[in-house]
Order: sequence, then C-alpha cells, then structure tokens
Amino acid sequence: MALARDVLQKKYRTTTLLEKPVRQYQEGTLPNQYSLSPTEKILVDLIRKYGEFSKSDLVSFTDFSRTKISTCIETLLDKHIIVVNDVTEYTGGRRSKKYSLNGDFGLVAGVDIGATSIDIGIADFSGKLVARYTEPASVKDGPIRILGRICTLLEILIKENGSELHHLHGIGLGVPGPVDFSVGLLMTPPIMPGWDHYPIIPTIQQWFPSANIVVDNDVNVMAIGEMHQGAGKGVDNLIFIKIGTGIGAGIICEGKIYRGSNGCAGDVGHISVDHNGPLCHCGNRGCLEAIAAGPAIASRSLEAALAGKSPALLQYYESNGHILRAEDVGKASKEGDVLAIEIVRESGKHIGSVLASLVNFFNPGMIVIGGGVSNIGDLLLSSIRQAVLRRSLPLATRDLQIVFSETGPDAGVIGAINLAMDNIFVISSSRSEQATE
Amino acid sequence: MALARDVLQKKYRTTTLLEKPVRQYQEGTLPNQYSLSPTEKILVDLIRKYGEFSKSDLVSFTDFSRTKISTCIETLLDKHIIVVNDVTEYTGGRRSKKYSLNGDFGLVAGVDIGATSIDIGIADFSGKLVARYTEPASVKDGPIRILGRICTLLEILIKENGSELHHLHGIGLGVPGPVDFSVGLLMTPPIMPGWDHYPIIPTIQQWFPSANIVVDNDVNVMAIGEMHQGAGKGVDNLIFIKIGTGIGAGIICEGKIYRGSNGCAGDVGHISVDHNGPLCHCGNRGCLEAIAAGPAIASRSLEAALAGKSPALLQYYESNGHILRAEDVGKASKEGDVLAIEIVRESGKHIGSVLASLVNFFNPGMIVIGGGVSNIGDLLLSSIRQAVLRRSLPLATRDLQIVFSETGPDAGVIGAINLAMDNIFVISSSRSEQATE
Repeated sequence: MALARDVLQKKYRTTTLLEKPVRQYQEGTLPNQYSLSPTEKILVDLIRKYGEFSKSDLVSFTDFSRTKISTCIETLLDKHIIVVNDVTEYTGGRRSKKYSLNGDFGLVAGVDIGATSIDIGIADFSGKLVARYTEPASVKDGPIRILGRICTLLEILIKENGSELHHLHGIGLGVPGPVDFSVGLLMTPPIMPGWDHYPIIPTIQQWFPSANIVVDNDVNVMAIGEMHQGAGKGVDNLIFIKIGTGIGAGIICEGKIYRGSNGCAGDVGHISVDHNGPLCHCGNRGCLEAIAAGPAIASRSLEAALAGKSPALLQYYESNGHILRAEDVGKASKEGDVLAIEIVRESGKHIGSVLASLVNFFNPGMIVIGGGVSNIGDLLLSSIRQAVLRRSLPLATRDLQIVFSETGPDAGVIGAINLAMDNIFVISSSRSEQATE
Repeated sequence: MALARDVLQKKYRTTTLLEKPVRQYQEGTLPNQYSLSPTEKILVDLIRKYGEFSKSDLVSFTDFSRTKISTCIETLLDKHIIVVNDVTEYTGGRRSKKYSLNGDFGLVAGVDIGATSIDIGIADFSGKLVARYTEPASVKDGPIRILGRICTLLEILIKENGSELHHLHGIGLGVPGPVDFSVGLLMTPPIMPGWDHYPIIPTIQQWFPSANIVVDNDVNVMAIGEMHQGAGKGVDNLIFIKIGTGIGAGIICEGKIYRGSNGCAGDVGHISVDHNGPLCHCGNRGCLEAIAAGPAIASRSLEAALAGKSPALLQYYESNGHILRAEDVGKASKEGDVLAIEIVRESGKHIGSVLASLVNFFNPGMIVIGGGVSNIGDLLLSSIRQAVLRRSLPLATRDLQIVFSETGPDAGVIGAINLAMDNIFVISSSRSEQATE
C-alpha cells in the first residue's frame, strides 16, 4: 500500500515525541480495554476465530441456552461490537442471521520491529487489513528514534485511511528480544542497544492515549499470528520455530501463547547440540543457533567455497561482492550443488534433532517453521522432518504435522494485530454479574 | 495402617469380578460428578487449595463481590460440600467464620499401580487420609487379577473405616504406562502385557457405580500430587521428573497438568543424549533412560566392580547374592567410593543436560525430582543442578528451583487422590445461570 510521497521523504523526527502534547495520558492510567461478561467474551472470541456465526452455531458450539445467547447478542449489538450480516441467500430450512465483528468499531495496529526493518499493518475490527507499510530501519538507532518513527507512520497511515487517531483501539508490537510481557519491557536484549527496560508502552501511549498497547517477543507474536490466521488454525498445541540470524520458538499451549515463569520460554537457539561445537555469542559451545542458523550456514559454506569445494557457492560469493548468505546456499542447493545440499541437510538434521527432544517432551500437534532461513525450502523441511521422525516416539509423531509458516513475511504484522485484539476485550470482574447469579 | 489379618491372607480372587452384580452401571452412564456454577467451582478450588477460607479472604482473592460470595457459600453449605469451622479464638477486629471442605461429604480413593506393587490411599473430602495400604503385586499378572484385587482391597478398606461403598465418590488411578486420558485407556504400554486398551474404568465402575473414576500415567499423577501437597504448592509451571527403572516427566503448565496432543507429553526418557550410546529398549541408541536410569547405573557399576575397580561395589554385589542395584551405588557413593561417586555424577550430568534443554524451552519455575533413583541423594541432585545451570540461559534459571519430591513414597497415592478430587466437581453447562445473567 503506497504512502504519499512526502511521507516517504520525511526523515526521522527525533524531537516529535517531545513536542507531542500529552493528551489524556497519565502514569498509571489503565490502557483502553472493553469489559465483557464471561459469556460475551466467549462469544466474541468464537466470532473472531471463525469470522461469522449464526445463533444456532453458537448454541451448538458453546452449550449455552438460546435465551442466554440471544441476550448476549443484543448486548454486543448495542455496544456496536458485532453486526448482523446481510442474509443474501436462502439455503433451505429456517433463514438464520449471521453475526460478525463490526469492522467500523475501530482500528487495530500491528507493528513488527525487526533488526533492520519496521513493518506496520492496520486492520479494522473485522480483521480486514486497511493499511500495510514497510521501511528499512536499524533497531540499533535506539528506542526514541524508532518509536518516534513508528508513531509518525501510524498517524499518517490512520489519517490516509480517513480515520482519526482515537479510532485506534489497540497496538501490538513485536520486538526482536526477550520481553517481560506483564510490564512490556525488554530484558537485556542482545541486539538492541538502548532498549533495555525502555518504557515502550508509555512512550507510544502519549501519541495514542485511546489505544491499548501490548509488547511481546517477535517469535511469540509470529506464533500468535500463525495460530489465528496461518497453518496453526484450530491446533491447540503448537511450536513455531523461527530460523533466521538466530533461532527461537513461540509456544502455543492449549490455544494460548505460553511465556514461561520468567517470560523467556522458547529460547531453543541455545539448546546444546554439540558440547565441542563452535563458540556461541552466549558464551557456551555448540548451541543450536551457532551450528544451524543463517550465519552458521553461510560461514560453513564460505569456508568450503574458498577451499574450492563448490564452484556454485564460489560464484555466488563473487557475484555478491564477496558476501555469501544463507539464501545463496539455499539457491545453490536447489540448483543441485552437492556441497550446498549437504550443508542444508546437516543444518536441518541438527534443528530436527532438537525438535525431536521437544516433541517427546511437549507432544505438540504441529511444528511451524518460519523465519528467513526457511526460504531455503523443501530440502530443509524434509531434513528436519526426517530427524524428528527418527528420534521421536511413534505416538508423539502419529498426528504431528511439520509445515512451513503460511503467514510468510506478514507473520509479524498479522501476529501483532492479533496480539492487540487478544488484549482489547477482557472479562470484567464478575461484579457486573453479581446481582443476577 | 494395618488391615485385618484375614484380608492380608486372602489370595487374588480372579473370579470375584465376574460374580459381582452389575449394579447401576451401564455402558454410557456418566460418571458421578457434582455440577457447580463457575463461581462455586472457583471458590471450592480455592478452599481445596488453601484448606480454610473466610469470606473476606475469598473477596480479596477472587475479585467477586461479598454478596455474590455469600450467595455461593449458602449454596455450598446447603449442598453439604463445605462446612463452617468452629471459631475458637478471637484475634481482634471482626470475628470471621472460616469455611473448609466437608470431610463427611464422602471418600475419595487414590490407587498407584506400580510395576511390582499396589498402593492405595483413601481420604475424606477434606483431604485427610483415613486408610493407607500397600502390597506387592506384579502388573504382569494382567488387568483382571490386578483390578479385581484393587476393588477387593478398596471394599475392605472402606468397610474397615465404617463407611459404605456408595460413600466413595471418586477413584484416581496412576498406571506405569502411556494413557489416553480422555478415554482412560492404556496405549501399548511396554511393561504391562494384557493392559493395552483394557477397559479399566468400566471394570472398576461395576464395583463402585457411585464413584467417578479417572486413569492417568503414574508420572502425571505424581506431578499433580506434588503440585497440590508437595514442593510444588503455588508453582504455576513445573516439571516433575521421575528417575527409576525408566525416566519420565509430568508437566504442570499454568497450574494444570499438561498431557500434550496425544496424551504422551513428558516422555523425556527417550530424548537422545548420545547418538552412539547404548541401545535402548525403544530401538534407538543413547536415550537418556538407557544411559542414566536405575538399570544403566547398576550395569555400569557392575561392570566396573567385576573389573576390580571398586572393592566397595564388589562387596555390595557379593553380599546381595550377586545383584547390584542403583541404590547400592548410591550407598557406596555416600561411603566415599570414588567409582560410585563418578557414576552418580555422570548420571546426574546427563539428566541435567537434558533438563537444561527443557528449561530453555519451557522456562519452568521448579523442577521436582522423584522416583527410586532419587534416593541416591544430594550428590545426584547437585550434579543435576550444576549441569542445568551450566547449559541454561541465566534468565531462565534466575528463579528456578531444583528440589527433591516432598511427597516421597506417597507421591503416587496423594497424586491419585488429588486427580480424583480434580474431576469430581465440574462446572455446569451455563444453563443454570442462563435465566439470570
């Protein structure tokens, strides 16, 4: 989706943030959330998940009485959270109205902060994407510049859509580092200088006081996206593994993201594969990341290419201006280069053997593979699959699916939008139901 | 707790099961459960967890209004599920009544079927153990004999307690094999010939038609016991690892037992430690179980003893009638035998390195170590701890506790009683609340 040219030409405005008037925002103000009764929340989640629902569908899915569902639907219609869809077709039997989320209720933004890019998507409440924008940006520029730029872009995108800032009800952010989700703070992120404990939420809240803002680790966000809109739809227990510069996992457990006791669950890149292996930036030897992530694939290939073992890889190296990347190795493997094939297989075998352990432990229904290195393609996937099947118990792999991410380059944005949506509707303290139970 | 002598002398009565009249039991009859409203269920769970609660405690814990809590308490008192405790002391401020579960409401049994023993405990609804009994039994005798014996023992224990069979509201069973919990069936258990898909629940239901019966894997049951009454009280995310003849794990995730997509989560004994290691009975090489469980410790020690490397181990071997067990290695290590110490350390290191991977992935708040081999003691524990700390990420181990099980030899029985209690009170379909919300 194209932005007006003047936007693209705008430089980072580091001062903007400070000039911006602090509107309603105050320290300690609760983020903007909508309280629903437990039953309303269940119905909204179901409608969100399946897109459209009739009363009869809801009765058969939930075990609630028709009376109760009717009452809740009236309330949700009154609150403008859901709408009745046009019934255009009569398919026999009784004509039944379908309900879906009200797109006009407001907007939700998903922001994916990568190491070298900012990705933004804005959707309406029905989940329809109304704006999508990407630009290169270095996360090393620090939070003030990056967050300022993100707020500027959000404001422009919202206005271009003909909306007002207060129409933005939620913002989800994915960041490439460990996050304490409960407070929205990055915890000593290795590749993000200046971001440690930076107050991301209050900063953005100043620009968008009416938005409920949540921050999570990028892999968790991708796992959420995959569960809602990707390969993982309807799968209760899922491991999303991102293979890129590093290797990390997002865990969906019983239909919910699982973050662990300190919020750092899923850090599978530092599982030990070979105690005598190469040194990892974490200080240990032979971590999965140091053996099978993008840089490891590239450096092993480069070594072999320079030693004259692969003419194809050497050609990529020379035509790229003396750089060899994991994606080049992927291309060479597709062209039939024996050494590239061997390196990809080796990498898949290591990833698969770690996943085999996790399958024995966690018994997921699906493993989704994403991240830049996954573009290497089917050879990598089949090597991973073989290693998992060889080392896992038969019962644990009987129904296990191992697939590539379906959300692709949009994974982060889609996930962040869904993360925001997950946190907008909350169950009210039961006080509202107290008088009636 | 001693049983009457005539009971102990009774032989297995394999025919009893068939003679027993099929009382109310019919295929498809729902097991005996008590429906509660969502709020009542929350209150009952809280009272169960903490033993005793005043109204003010409940208000501050739950966020429900005092009015709502009062209404629920009246209902629960009417149903005789809870009782008011005597207020014997006036501690200043307003005197407040305390509520606890009503022990007289009925009985719950926990049965732990081991490879070579049957363990039974019967508790009243307040959790107080009223009967405890153990006898040797080989699980290889098959389900008809073992289940017949269990039912006989349960009947005797109940009657000795001055109760009637219909006072038994729930039975929890732990079995040493993989279980599909949703149907209560063992799935191709390796050490239980004749038990595969055997209808355990209908069999026991014939004797105890008023009891709600649930069957689960023994390690899951131990994890549940540890969470409710052991070291894991109040810990949301926990891995219970049982080290005995085999190695398995029970996973508590967000305060609930996690069974995985096929019910086989926690099968950590077959995680690969050394691709060139000894052959495991599962067909793979170098599984954790084949390297670090009881038999592996014993056989490595025996080899060394026979080679003349450890006089202490040789002495145990000879005085035991030419058998060397893992517990002997433990004893020798405590007496300072260098080789025994090395073997225990080695075993702990392997277990710890697998746990380190799981800590990176799952980020639990606690690891509890149980099972027969854990009796080896502190040397094993410290070796495991060292290996976990060496290979896990600092954030994941910051608050991690690694401790021995506190439920000890009662782990299975306590867990099974709690498993049964977990499944007696269920949330009613919301129909009961329909008219009022």
